[in-house]
Amino acid sequence: MAAEKKIPYKMYLEENEIPTRWYNVRADMKNKPFPMLNPGTGKPVTAEDLTPVFCAELVEQELDNDTAYFDIPQEIQEYYKTFRPSPLIRAYNLEKALGTPAKIYFKFEGNNTSGSHKLNSASAQAYYAKKQGLKGVTTETGAGQWGTALSMACAYFGLDCKVFMVKVSYEQKPFRREVMRTYGAEVTPSPSMETNIGRKINAEFPGTTGSLGCAISEAVEVAVSSEGYRYVLGSVLNQVLLHQSVIGLEAKAACDKFGIEPDIIIGCAGGGSNLGGLIAPFMGEKLRGEKDYRIVAVEPASCPSFTRGVYAYDFCDTGMITPLAKMYTLGSGFIPSANHAGGLRFHGMSPVLSQLYHDGYMEAVAVEQTSVFEAAEQFARVEGILPAPESSHAIRAAIDEALKCKETGEEKTILFGLTGTGYFDMVAYQQYNDGTMTDTIPTDEDLAKSIAALPKVE
Amino acid sequence: MAAEKKIPYKMYLEENEIPTRWYNVRADMKNKPFPMLNPGTGKPVTAEDLTPVFCAELVEQELDNDTAYFDIPQEIQEYYKTFRPSPLIRAYNLEKALGTPAKIYFKFEGNNTSGSHKLNSASAQAYYAKKQGLKGVTTETGAGQWGTALSMACAYFGLDCKVFMVKVSYEQKPFRREVMRTYGAEVTPSPSMETNIGRKINAEFPGTTGSLGCAISEAVEVAVSSEGYRYVLGSVLNQVLLHQSVIGLEAKAACDKFGIEPDIIIGCAGGGSNLGGLIAPFMGEKLRGEKDYRIVAVEPASCPSFTRGVYAYDFCDTGMITPLAKMYTLGSGFIPSANHAGGLRFHGMSPVLSQLYHDGYMEAVAVEQTSVFEAAEQFARVEGILPAPESSHAIRAAIDEALKCKETGEEKTILFGLTGTGYFDMVAYQQYNDGTMTDTIPTDEDLAKSIAALPKVE
Repeated sequence: MAAEKKIPYKMYLEENEIPTRWYNVRADMKNKPFPMLNPGTGKPVTAEDLTPVFCAELVEQELDNDTAYFDIPQEIQEYYKTFRPSPLIRAYNLEKALGTPAKIYFKFEGNNTSGSHKLNSASAQAYYAKKQGLKGVTTETGAGQWGTALSMACAYFGLDCKVFMVKVSYEQKPFRREVMRTYGAEVTPSPSMETNIGRKINAEFPGTTGSLGCAISEAVEVAVSSEGYRYVLGSVLNQVLLHQSVIGLEAKAACDKFGIEPDIIIGCAGGGSNLGGLIAPFMGEKLRGEKDYRIVAVEPASCPSFTRGVYAYDFCDTGMITPLAKMYTLGSGFIPSANHAGGLRFHGMSPVLSQLYHDGYMEAVAVEQTSVFEAAEQFARVEGILPAPESSHAIRAAIDEALKCKETGEEKTILFGLTGTGYFDMVAYQQYNDGTMTDTIPTDEDLAKSIAALPKVE
Repeated sequence: MAAEKKIPYKMYLEENEIPTRWYNVRADMKNKPFPMLNPGTGKPVTAEDLTPVFCAELVEQELDNDTAYFDIPQEIQEYYKTFRPSPLIRAYNLEKALGTPAKIYFKFEGNNTSGSHKLNSASAQAYYAKKQGLKGVTTETGAGQWGTALSMACAYFGLDCKVFMVKVSYEQKPFRREVMRTYGAEVTPSPSMETNIGRKINAEFPGTTGSLGCAISEAVEVAVSSEGYRYVLGSVLNQVLLHQSVIGLEAKAACDKFGIEPDIIIGCAGGGSNLGGLIAPFMGEKLRGEKDYRIVAVEPASCPSFTRGVYAYDFCDTGMITPLAKMYTLGSGFIPSANHAGGLRFHGMSPVLSQLYHDGYMEAVAVEQTSVFEAAEQFARVEGILPAPESSHAIRAAIDEALKCKETGEEKTILFGLTGTGYFDMVAYQQYNDGTMTDTIPTDEDLAKSIAALPKVE
């Protein structure tokens, strides 16, 4: 192990140390992620298939499995400087509270108004849309972090922004809506009555609280049927993982600068954007055989795509209008229980991460939400930061690993991603504070049913 | 002007550059602030008068007008490292949006879970209470930032925390309550039925939405009548301005490091803690005749203690149980209109700032809340940060100064304090977004009435 410098609580890179290139982990994968398929033809999607939906440059990024580095356009670099670098933080107080010999670090992406890492990709997607001369973009949002991030980026670059917000979050998090409106976005609860798919789902499932998959369908429908609009997505896609690599590149630069060598890297996983971004350069080293790391994905037990899903082609949305992606999935008809408080409620998982998991480069664990909020509360009290429920999945796993070190006496170095803050999740915290929060784990029958409905692909 | 280095967007000091001493501006004042008076005897309060209410070391800090620097205890320095240094930020995007030749900088204190600068003094007050062997502390909170900060500091140092929260905020900001509860605090809406003064005010003014002055009375009553408790206050007091000098000291250190020489320093002013802290070292230079700065206090037109109050002895609370302080005041019976959305709703002003204002070292302006939210929205959209309504008073004034520079062509350097974030103020933002926000300015008759009720002091 390299000689360790005196580690401050918070490590900031200099502005000129912010990455100027994104790293594309696909370039170092021997087994590339499977191509998305056109659901009509069953053949791999082409750039022509995707350009009605996505901006042209993003389509290139989406389909490019070979280019290892993409230059970050100067305009995006300038915007990044307003909220990056994010700090790498040594959790001295958590270590002390746990009495662990482990060293715990976290990369904190929550110190911007969107409250999460989502702004890294929103910046890029808004920029390319503007550059292409578009009028606006549409999207979906679950917990609201992605929608907020996109609203901010659209305000900065001067684009219209239409957000379909999963109804349960729209109702539980009305203040998120107001943040988005303050940035000029138009916010609609999903399923809405404004789209064909929304009206259909409302008719089939009256009173549904919605799902990310359904909101995606609505946003795509509006994008492809409106002049000058494209659809943007905050997770799952290859392009999003590419943009989010800025998290891992910064984390790695800080580790190198301060002589930190992580043994275990932990991230929460919904669609995979944070985890994919955080681990990117570390995974690159692992894929190239230069270094070894334990890499752990943490998902909610109420939406366990890695740990209980299947690796298969599936739609990314409920309405079955998107291309098919090969990924770990619970089936596009799966909707997590309404009492699941956090985000990470997507039925599938990034195809890149799915392939890496399938090939044994990563582990996955599922954790229950009461234990997640217990970890969140402990973390908040000793480290100060009130974490997002999503991020707290990673905290739970990091604490569990640190407690294992306490038992074994091993001085492992743990790095986890703290994706965001929980300021807009106080309804969930209130449930936890009141002792009314429960755990909900889907039954095998539930999962068998949604998985049985997967599309048939040769 | 010194040669200007290339200024990054965000300037962070190193951890070892965080101030290790607080600066007491009173030491450099020729005209000291007037002493507080014991309301029973009419004589200056003594340490003996104050120790039943405040921690012993804080009483010393409160009464010491001569010591220029106080060492920050090591334990507080350690805690500071978890949320400080705060960045000094160049508002490049705001400058561009305004088309101003002015250079705009802001010291941003909002990147911690309390969402504001309040944690600087909460840390100190909780530490001294713990060191004195107390069981807990009581306090009041208006917008909720101070209560959150104190809850965090009490969780860190291991103290009970009882918070009386102004009823209008308790209702408008239920999520603040949950943040405090997550940190283990007990939160009660004020006026409550748990204290003599609360019951009295509820009886006299049924349906009152409360005031900071009333909540102070309740918190003090509980502190002095409970074994092992003391009262702590988030603003107004000399000790609080002392602790908050860390803001100004850091800002000045960053200015010196990057070759920035402010011409105008702007801060919002409720009780004065942020403004007093931000300006402290700059005011010291001005008092010592070393430098000159324009220093501007910005207050809400709905609670205009500097611009429409009188400089007189008054109670700090509605219940008239605190010592009398000589300050700019609207009268302790003044309660701002319930449609006033932000904080800064205290009827008086820090005695230190009051004396400095009285002696002509500072200016003051009052601004109306719709214009404040207009500035907040503009700032949020170009600078990314969604500001607290309180902080946005300073933004309004900074924008106005920058626009004056645009007219005159002067390249002035403006430094303002961005005290916090508005994530828990979305009810107010919603009013603004919906176009239902109104301005309320107290009439001359309103003010004459509350000012006429000032205590008679020789």
